[in-house]
Amino acid sequence: MLVNGKHYRTVWFENGKVRMINQLLLPHKFEIVSLGSVAEVADAIRTMVVRGAPAIGAAGAYGVALACRKGEDFQKAAELLRSTRPTAHDLFHAVDFVANSVRDAPGLGERKRIALQKAEEYASASAEACRKIGEHGSKLIKSSSRIATHCNAGWLACVDWGTALSPMYFAKREGKDVFVWIDETRPRLQGAKLTAWEMVNERIPHSVIADNALGYYMAKGEVDLMIVGADRIASNGDFANKIGTYEKAVVAKENGIPFYVAAPSSTFDGKCRSGKEIAIEEREEDEVHFVGKERITPKEAKAKNPAFDVTPARLVSGVITENGIIEPGYVRGLSGK
Amino acid sequence: MLVNGKHYRTVWFENGKVRMINQLLLPHKFEIVSLGSVAEVADAIRTMVVRGAPAIGAAGAYGVALACRKGEDFQKAAELLRSTRPTAHDLFHAVDFVANSVRDAPGLGERKRIALQKAEEYASASAEACRKIGEHGSKLIKSSSRIATHCNAGWLACVDWGTALSPMYFAKREGKDVFVWIDETRPRLQGAKLTAWEMVNERIPHSVIADNALGYYMAKGEVDLMIVGADRIASNGDFANKIGTYEKAVVAKENGIPFYVAAPSSTFDGKCRSGKEIAIEEREEDEVHFVGKERITPKEAKAKNPAFDVTPARLVSGVITENGIIEPGYVRGLSGK
Repeated sequence: MLVNGKHYRTVWFENGKVRMINQLLLPHKFEIVSLGSVAEVADAIRTMVVRGAPAIGAAGAYGVALACRKGEDFQKAAELLRSTRPTAHDLFHAVDFVANSVRDAPGLGERKRIALQKAEEYASASAEACRKIGEHGSKLIKSSSRIATHCNAGWLACVDWGTALSPMYFAKREGKDVFVWIDETRPRLQGAKLTAWEMVNERIPHSVIADNALGYYMAKGEVDLMIVGADRIASNGDFANKIGTYEKAVVAKENGIPFYVAAPSSTFDGKCRSGKEIAIEEREEDEVHFVGKERITPKEAKAKNPAFDVTPARLVSGVITENGIIEPGYVRGLSGK
Repeated sequence: MLVNGKHYRTVWFENGKVRMINQLLLPHKFEIVSLGSVAEVADAIRTMVVRGAPAIGAAGAYGVALACRKGEDFQKAAELLRSTRPTAHDLFHAVDFVANSVRDAPGLGERKRIALQKAEEYASASAEACRKIGEHGSKLIKSSSRIATHCNAGWLACVDWGTALSPMYFAKREGKDVFVWIDETRPRLQGAKLTAWEMVNERIPHSVIADNALGYYMAKGEVDLMIVGADRIASNGDFANKIGTYEKAVVAKENGIPFYVAAPSSTFDGKCRSGKEIAIEEREEDEVHFVGKERITPKEAKAKNPAFDVTPARLVSGVITENGIIEPGYVRGLSGK
């Protein structure tokens, strides 16, 4: 997608180095980092220079390719990369995809060639899946639509295009006017920081609003459609996503507003029968107590900080995947259960 | 209510001065300001050293008493005080209550005496109405209740006790265990800053959560009751309150959680037929773009900042007033229409 009018992916390989947008500095500074060692790539994943499951996966794939290029032990490199973010399913998958493909390569030169080819293949397939999500999702969007989203399920979380935001980008390229409601998404403010930055760069009209305010605009009839991402979709269609998704889905239903989930089919977890089986990560209190360096609560106050919530399938109008739009009732079929 | 174990009101008269808690410094610093001139009282109201309609009303009443004590033109003082916050209905009412009572006083000494007596009467009646809200509201609270609130409708917004928080304080004094869910209430963070500070000082167990998170706890069955304040209640029972109240009411209804409004009967506006007639103040974008001095959005991003929303009567279980708990359907009778 566009940054200052030029096309970028979140992570790529160039002149023997893994390059990525430093997401820690957004939205106030746009900087590309060049990583010349596997240790540096691992650090970048660990410290969230790159974030979002698909983007992390591509970084891991390129990390293995970098090890092969330098003639290093690619198995050790894979192990290090896998250890950076213990819950990132896409990361394990991507690292193994490249590492397994070079295991039987007949020499260093061939290994180097195959590893980079496989890493590029992984990244491009990931970008293409997101582009297809955009293509299918755009069918839901009429011109002059006012679309709400939550958190950042944009291209910064992927290799390119994004998940929830991809249909908006696709619709714009098809000549449709779109307007996007962006809620801040406390405590980490991914909406205010990242989604707003994407919209500014794609020149899409938008308004950032407090997390409290979307229902007000829904009730006023100023929201036509809502699209969010998903971290995990259970086989009954329930899904986990950033905290607050559930509230928005309830209020969308109350106001008769279509509510869609956009996610690649790799997000479907056929082993998970319903949302009740999804464990919710509780993060540190200080994310609530502080905004940046400023403490907003009294120092004796207590806080709680669940990172995700579960939205039941009955509140979902459909799931937009690279293979088309699926009604939640059909998720079971898709996840092979 | 208590601050460091000692009882305070938000505003009072002492040694010839109007004294008030400087709410601009909370929650990090507790400071009492002493105001020796009407101009200083007017400034304190204008700059939000004191905020919340009932507290502002009492500050205005004491301001007129101060003018009388100093032998100044009380009509001019009343005019200055009325000009500070143009939409604060309680302020006009309080200032006129004191000013009208001294108009025919037979001398300066008598005027001084009557003015202070009337100001004290106004403040005490306001505190007593809030105490009664607590007494009635506490009947809804069983021991070990987990109660959610939104924004700050606590004693800091009133002279004492508060509105939405008064039932919790009353229940605690009756020996019931209560736990309070406090959402941050972006953009101005009155929950994180003020409600949390009140709870810390009253030693009531609580958790501050992101505005996004209350629905998660409601769905988990960890919220027994929700009580919020109101800025204005229409004669059909619809009410306006801090932005986000509507979303919480919808999610409470979805989860079968009783949702109460606590407000003195002066909040009922018999001339307002329904929520549709209530104009919503749109505040400056920068409250969304910034948290304290930190900008959270890209500098080219746009924002919208509605300060209030309207919750329809059908989502309300009842209204807790100083006269008892009223079902929303009966509001019409109470507001005299």
